Parts: sequence; structure tokens; C-alpha cells
Amino acid sequence: MFVKNHWYVAGWDYEIDQRPLARTICGEPVVLYRKFDRTPVGLRDACPHRLLPLSMGIKEGDNIRCRYHGLLIDSDGAAVEMPVRSERVHKSVCTKAYPVVERHRFVWIWIGDSALADPSTIPDFWPCSDPKWTFDGGYYHIRCDYRLVIDNLMDLSHETYVHQGSIGQHEILNAPIETNATGNKVTVTRWMPNIDAPPFWRSALKKQGPVDRWQICHFLAPSSVIIDVGVALVTAGATIDEHDQGVRGFVIDAMTPEDETTSHYFWGMARNFDIDDAGFTARFKQQQGGVFMEDVAILEAQQRSLLLNPTLKLKAFSIDTGGVRARQVIDRMVAAQE
Amino acid sequence: MFVKNHWYVAGWDYEIDQRPLARTICGEPVVLYRKFDRTPVGLRDACPHRLLPLSMGIKEGDNIRCRYHGLLIDSDGAAVEMPVRSERVHKSVCTKAYPVVERHRFVWIWIGDSALADPSTIPDFWPCSDPKWTFDGGYYHIRCDYRLVIDNLMDLSHETYVHQGSIGQHEILNAPIETNATGNKVTVTRWMPNIDAPPFWRSALKKQGPVDRWQICHFLAPSSVIIDVGVALVTAGATIDEHDQGVRGFVIDAMTPEDETTSHYFWGMARNFDIDDAGFTARFKQQQGGVFMEDVAILEAQQRSLLLNPTLKLKAFSIDTGGVRARQVIDRMVAAQE
Amino acid sequence: MFVKNHWYVAGWDYEIDQRPLARTICGEPVVLYRKFDRTPVGLRDACPHRLLPLSMGIKEGDNIRCRYHGLLIDSDGAAVEMPVRSERVHKSVCTKAYPVVERHRFVWIWIGDSALADPSTIPDFWPCSDPKWTFDGGYYHIRCDYRLVIDNLMDLSHETYVHQGSIGQHEILNAPIETNATGNKVTVTRWMPNIDAPPFWRSALKKQGPVDRWQICHFLAPSSVIIDVGVALVTAGATIDEHDQGVRGFVIDAMTPEDETTSHYFWGMARNFDIDDAGFTARFKQQQGGVFMEDVAILEAQQRSLLLNPTLKLKAFSIDTGGVRARQVIDRMVAAQE
Repeated sequence: MFVKNHWYVAGWDYEIDQRPLARTICGEPVVLYRKFDRTPVGLRDACPHRLLPLSMGIKEGDNIRCRYHGLLIDSDGAAVEMPVRSERVHKSVCTKAYPVVERHRFVWIWIGDSALADPSTIPDFWPCSDPKWTFDGGYYHIRCDYRLVIDNLMDLSHETYVHQGSIGQHEILNAPIETNATGNKVTVTRWMPNIDAPPFWRSALKKQGPVDRWQICHFLAPSSVIIDVGVALVTAGATIDEHDQGVRGFVIDAMTPEDETTSHYFWGMARNFDIDDAGFTARFKQQQGGVFMEDVAILEAQQRSLLLNPTLKLKAFSIDTGGVRARQVIDRMVAAQE
Repeated sequence: MFVKNHWYVAGWDYEIDQRPLARTICGEPVVLYRKFDRTPVGLRDACPHRLLPLSMGIKEGDNIRCRYHGLLIDSDGAAVEMPVRSERVHKSVCTKAYPVVERHRFVWIWIGDSALADPSTIPDFWPCSDPKWTFDGGYYHIRCDYRLVIDNLMDLSHETYVHQGSIGQHEILNAPIETNATGNKVTVTRWMPNIDAPPFWRSALKKQGPVDRWQICHFLAPSSVIIDVGVALVTAGATIDEHDQGVRGFVIDAMTPEDETTSHYFWGMARNFDIDDAGFTARFKQQQGGVFMEDVAILEAQQRSLLLNPTLKLKAFSIDTGGVRARQVIDRMVAAQE
Repeated sequence: MFVKNHWYVAGWDYEIDQRPLARTICGEPVVLYRKFDRTPVGLRDACPHRLLPLSMGIKEGDNIRCRYHGLLIDSDGAAVEMPVRSERVHKSVCTKAYPVVERHRFVWIWIGDSALADPSTIPDFWPCSDPKWTFDGGYYHIRCDYRLVIDNLMDLSHETYVHQGSIGQHEILNAPIETNATGNKVTVTRWMPNIDAPPFWRSALKKQGPVDRWQICHFLAPSSVIIDVGVALVTAGATIDEHDQGVRGFVIDAMTPEDETTSHYFWGMARNFDIDDAGFTARFKQQQGGVFMEDVAILEAQQRSLLLNPTLKLKAFSIDTGGVRARQVIDRMVAAQE
């Protein structure tokens, strides 16, 4: 059971264009495209006539014509021309149109009850669109329950082993973490004071001297995780509440359920330093894609194991508190929906 | 649920030979082969001993010997020699033999109750075997419910979009159609009087001047569609009832269910002009195969969409009346069978 | 339903090494490896923390560290180090450890109730480890119910057709067989007195003259078959009870269920002649592998046919008595287990 009455990322702003894109979200096949004024459109991906996917159709202006018998559907899902053009269109001939909003570099969709779709509840991905920040990232189709990705991101101790060839280091496991859960928000904070900056952050900081380092994982219900990361010189006096004194980034992760055991994984990084360095942006995206692919391999193996071992249950250790709390929020949202 | 008490095309006359051919029909695995006198044989494709497919067996005269332990089965499905040859064969050792008849260039099979198999009820595919006509065609395995193919063929308005690169034209959608249903017969007639012949028919007619053109789709229950097509000069006075004054063809379509969502599709065209032009026959078969492959792509996508959208229902417009009536006939036949 | 309270071959002694090997047995994913002292270990292939397969883990001494969060599991399945190393390990954090014993060139596993695992009940594969004998063989993954392989091996009359290009000959079918079933033991004996030795055995015997030949299939419940084969000069006076006067081999077959329709097939041959001829051993293994691959093709086709023809039942002839009796033993063992 999915939280259907919420906004999910349907795609990157760059993925959705005039040409129809098919993507199944929370079990529902959806076709996504843009109108000429660039407004994004999301319709159930099935012609109301004989159910051929509309994503196989022909764009005509802002409408889409089914490739089977030519029923013409407008961007509200209503049929506007019958196969026999002289016939009158009955208003019952329509396909579901989903509320779709473009914000913070993503196109968001509301799969559940449209009447409840309030754009002000779109998760606040502000670093993705703030002009003082630079943001880029990619997309992976991943064969696992989206909640396994949330577990993964709310506990960075896995970096030591999953990413031991890239970003993992034993120091992460040793730093204490603090988990806070209030309402639908869950935060896991790891503050590493007065340490030697690892190469990536030293190079970003461009300054010598001991640093304070932080990793603050924010769960944004039902299926996003934003991780506030960075370092600042100890002498700069950064705190958990205020830490813009050094270099700072946000790792952005939006997971959208496709079905029970497959998901769409949208990932990226926003940063507030060297924001005009396009080469840095591209190199970082490539590196981050490689690291996240290591997670994909682990998460897909974990999903297979869950299916092969139906009598075994996941166990939660102290490091899993963030994920456990996030799943409690999801469970409450699902229960409230029913 | 299939109409089992009826004749289905099991294969082209050229597909079935001495060598055993495996084909699943209405969910039942069948092995097909010919005796030396060319009589076709259809047996359940499972040795009565340990169920190894007989289609893996060794032909011995008109019999087939199982490749596992050597049980010898005759063309009536009876075992005639045990693995230990000195042992007596009990008459209970046998496999189901299906009534099989070769007619009109196809081998027909009766999957249901053999006692009811009357060859006089084989659909009348006379243009396929009439010496004044020439007939050829091909076979596609198609991953869809056979009824989706019937819908497709009983409504040629899809040609405009599905075959827009080949035979489609908007004129087809504009011509009125008339649907007649009497008993188990359903006919959809599109009569286009006094028009300019399209290139294919002009070249077949070899005469200048305005023509009458027709497309008359005949549903032959439970799973064939024959389409009477052609043109005649307006001055020749063709009518819906009599139209042999020009050039005429029959598009032949026999769909045999494999299982609930896959089918065997036998297609071809019979014509009464240039009947000795083997080059024309071969070129037309190649062209027709390309057009039908366009249908296969659409129909398989439609089937996938039906499975992915279990809560959505097919809608019927005026153009679908022929298919709707054909499905009513099928539903009545299934109900009568139970 | 499997006989779980019994020993199954988990792997060849040469397959299982320091490096973890994943193999599903009776539906349970298992990871197999060796300790430094070469003792084999079998654990449920799922980390007790988040179920990632332990077979993806990192060996550390005799322990295995999960590649996800680094939980360290010892060879008894107990966690000995938490991801956060300073945390205490609770004894409930453990994975199932299976009784595993190396004997007769194989590593055996007990999937059911460990308390009942008595190594003295491991099937007696003595020719595989007796110093006066030489033994080698291979492994196939086979997509069929393991009982189909038992049927196959308890009735060698299939050799005539399945192996007609290699070891099959009509003489086998004509020799009478005798089946004995006592308790959980089933034996099928085919004694061929005073015949001409086939080329393989003539070459092994290295003597001229008529021979007595035997094939004695022993079913070792629940899933092994050992076939005592060989020839001796008629003048040597071999009997069914005593036949070490000529050349003798044991065809070894151990089938381990993976799930309901797939199995692990461990096969080989032990012999008491030319035991130091490594070239003979290698050539024979290659030849035997080819012959058994012919069985694999038949058995997988039979399994597919069983699934496609759910209403049809296997029939038993006289030649099948050994397999029928073996299945009765299996059924009794399953019933006793419940």
C-alpha cells in the first residue's frame, strides 16, 4: 500500500518534454508530456477507448491523438475528437488527468484524490532551485521497495562497506548520531567536530586547518531524503543550527514507487560553492552516479533476499533508528488514508 | 474460457509435414504431423507414459515413438508397442487424438468434445481453395487475446493511424459503415461509391475512371474474419450483393487462441485477378506481412495495457459495433457450451 | 514438500572453499564456505540485520562480514561484532547455522531440525572415498523436480532412446529386471549373463571371452541413486551378491532439491580398475557429463510438460517399479515428518 495522497517526483524537468514519456507511478501507468507553454501534463497512460497507451500516440498541439483509432485527448484528459470526426464527443469519454506541478527542478505528480492536491505541500527542495546554489543529478530505475532506499539513506554507516572503494571510511561508523522525530519529520544528525577534512571537502574548502564536519539526513515524508553535508573551519564557529561558514551541499534523493518491489530513484547534489564551475558539476554528477550504483546493487540484492526469505524479518539496530522512524511516519500516513 | 467445441486453424497446410510440430491450442499442447498418405494427425503432445512431449519423438511410419522410453503411439493416439516390446499393451495406454481435417489450405482441429466434431461446420474459406482464385499468406505468433484481433479486423477505421505509413487514409474513416448481425454471423459493410481508386486497386484494375470500392468484413464464429475487398468501375454497376464486375480479393484472418493472452494468427489474401502471377503473389504476401506486423505491435501493447490497468474497461464507439457483436456471439457460444 | 530431516549433498568438496558460495536447498538460501582448518560451514544466506545475502559478504578469518553495514557473523551463525563496534551484541542477533559434514568427497547439509542431525545417517557413498577406488564427477543445475531424476535413474531402459547416440542399446531393454524394496531401500537389478561385453567394458576388462554384466540401481533415500555396474568373465563366477572378479564401477547420483521444480544434480563415477590413470578419469568425466546432459534435456522437457498438462498423470509400467517404490519411500518420509 502506497501513500497515494501526496506529491511524488514523476521526473526531472529535463526528462519531460513535448514527446510523451511513459512511467508507472504507485502502480498506475502514467504518460507525461509538456504543453507548448511548457506546462507539464500527466494523464493515465491508456486511451479511454481501447486502452492503447497514449504514450504511443501522436502529439497534436497540446493534445495527444491515440495511434490506434485516432481519439484525440486534450491535456485535461477529455476527448475532443472522435475517430469518426463528425460524431459528437460524450463527456464520459476521458482519461484520468493527474495534478502535476513543476517545482525545484522536478515535475511532481499527485496519484491519489485530486481534490486534496495542494501544491503548498510539495516537499521543500529549495536548494535545487535557489539561484545561489547549483544543482544537477540523474535517474535510476531500481528493483526494490522504495522504503529500502529510505532505510539506506537515513543511515550513512553503510558507506563504510558499500562504498569502501569510494567515499566509505571507518570514521563515519564511529561518530555518534542523534535521531529526532517530530510529526512527519525525521532527522538524523552526525556532527564530527575538529577532524581532518577528507580530500573532497578539503579541495572544496580550499583552506588548511581542522574542520567541523556534518551529515544531517532529513526525511521528507513520504519518500524523499535530503542530506545536509559539508565542512567549515573549526575557527569559523559552525553549529548544527547554523553552518554556512564553510562549504555546504545537499544530497537530494527522491524515491517514487513504481510498484511493490520496483522504484524510480531521482538523485543529485546541490552546492553553494563554485556554483559556476560546470566542469565540477559534471564531474561530481558522474562520481555520485557511480556511488549510487553501488547502492543499487546492494538494494536489489536485499530485495531479492526479502522475497526468497519470506519468513525472516528485518532487524533494527541503533543505526537504523532514522529509517525505523521514517517507516513509522509512512505507516501512519497509509493508515490515515484508509 | 474458450469456445472449445469448434474448428480452429491448427496450421497452414505447408507448416504441417512428416516432422512433428508442437503448438498449444486453447491451452492444450498438441503435436501435429502428417501420415505418409498426407492425412494430418493431431495428438495431445504428451506421451501417456511419463508425459515427455511426443513432438520430441521419433517418427516411425505413421506412428511416433517417444524419445524417453520408446512407447510407440499410432496416429489414433493408441500405444501399439511397450518399452519392453514383449509386454502386452493395455488399451488404457493412449493419448488424446483430436479430430483434424485439411480444408481450404489449412489444417483444422477440434479441441473440445470429439463426438460433436462435424467437418461440415468448418468455416467456409472457399476463396482459399477455389481454382479461380489464388491464395497465399503467413503466420504470426501474437501475444494478445485473440478477441483483440477480431476487434481490430471488424473495424478497419484503425487503418488510418496504425497503417498510416502504408495503406491508411482518412477517407476510410469518413465512409459510413453498416453492421448486420444475424445468428452467429456479423457483417460490417463499408461501400464507397464513385471515388478515385487508390494506387493498389487502380493498378489491379488496369482501367481508368471512377470506381465503386467496398470493404465487407465477415466474422465467422468463433475466431475468423474474412474481408471482401475490391473496386469496380462505376459504369460496371457493382452492388453490395453482386460485385464481381471488377477486381476482388478476400483478406483471410484466422485467429487461434494459444492461451488467455497469446494467440496464433494465420493471415493471407485470396484474389481473382492475375491469378497466375507468382511474383505478384509473393510481393503482396511480403507487403501484407509488413502491414499486419504493424497490427501486432499495437495489439501486443493493448494487451499489456489491459493487464497493467485491470480497473479500466474497454469502451465501444460506433466504429466498434462489429467487434461488439462478434464478442456477443462468442459469449453466447461459451455459455451454450457450459 | 521436501524431506527436510535428512542429509543432502550441498556441494562437491572442490566447490566449497574460503570464498562464500550461494546455493538454495529445499527452498532455503544457504551460504557455504570453509574455515581455515577446512571445516565446511553452512549458514542461512541472509544477514540477520537487513537480510543482505551473506554470500556477498567479506570473509574475515573464519567469520563473514556483511557487505551492507558490516555486522560480523561467526561460523556458528552468531553475530560477534555490531556495525558500531562499541555496541554490545545481543545473542538474538544470529542467522541459522546448518549441520554440515564433509564425507565421501561431498559436503552434506541438514536443512530440517538440527537436533535430529546424526552424521551416521549420511548415505553410504563409500566407493567415493575408498582408497582402492577412484572417483570424480561434476555438477548440473537442472530445472526439474528431483524425483524425475530418481525415476530416470531407477529405470535404465531409457538409455536405449535418450542415449541412443552414446551408451544406449536395445539389449538393455530386453534384459529382465528385478525390483526389491525393503524399508527405505529400493534396488533394481538387471543381470545379463554370458553376453558379449560392449566396447567400454571390454576395453576396461582387457580380456577376451564372454562376460556376465550387471546394472544394480540402489536408491538411497531420500534422493540418491548409486548404480553398481560392471562385467566379469563368465569363467570367473561372479554372482549378484559377489562380483568383484572383473571390472566394477559405481555411478553416483545425488539430487538435492532447490525448489519444487529445480534441483542440483551431483554426478560421477567411482571405479576399482586403472585407478591411477588420471587421463582415463578425465576422459570418462567428460563423456559421462555429455551423457547426463542428454538426460537434462529430457528431464527439463518432461517438467515443462507436467506444468503445461496439469490434468494428466504419470503412468507406471513394469520398468517404472523401482521409481514407484522410491517415491513411496519419499512419501512415507514426508508423512512421518509432519
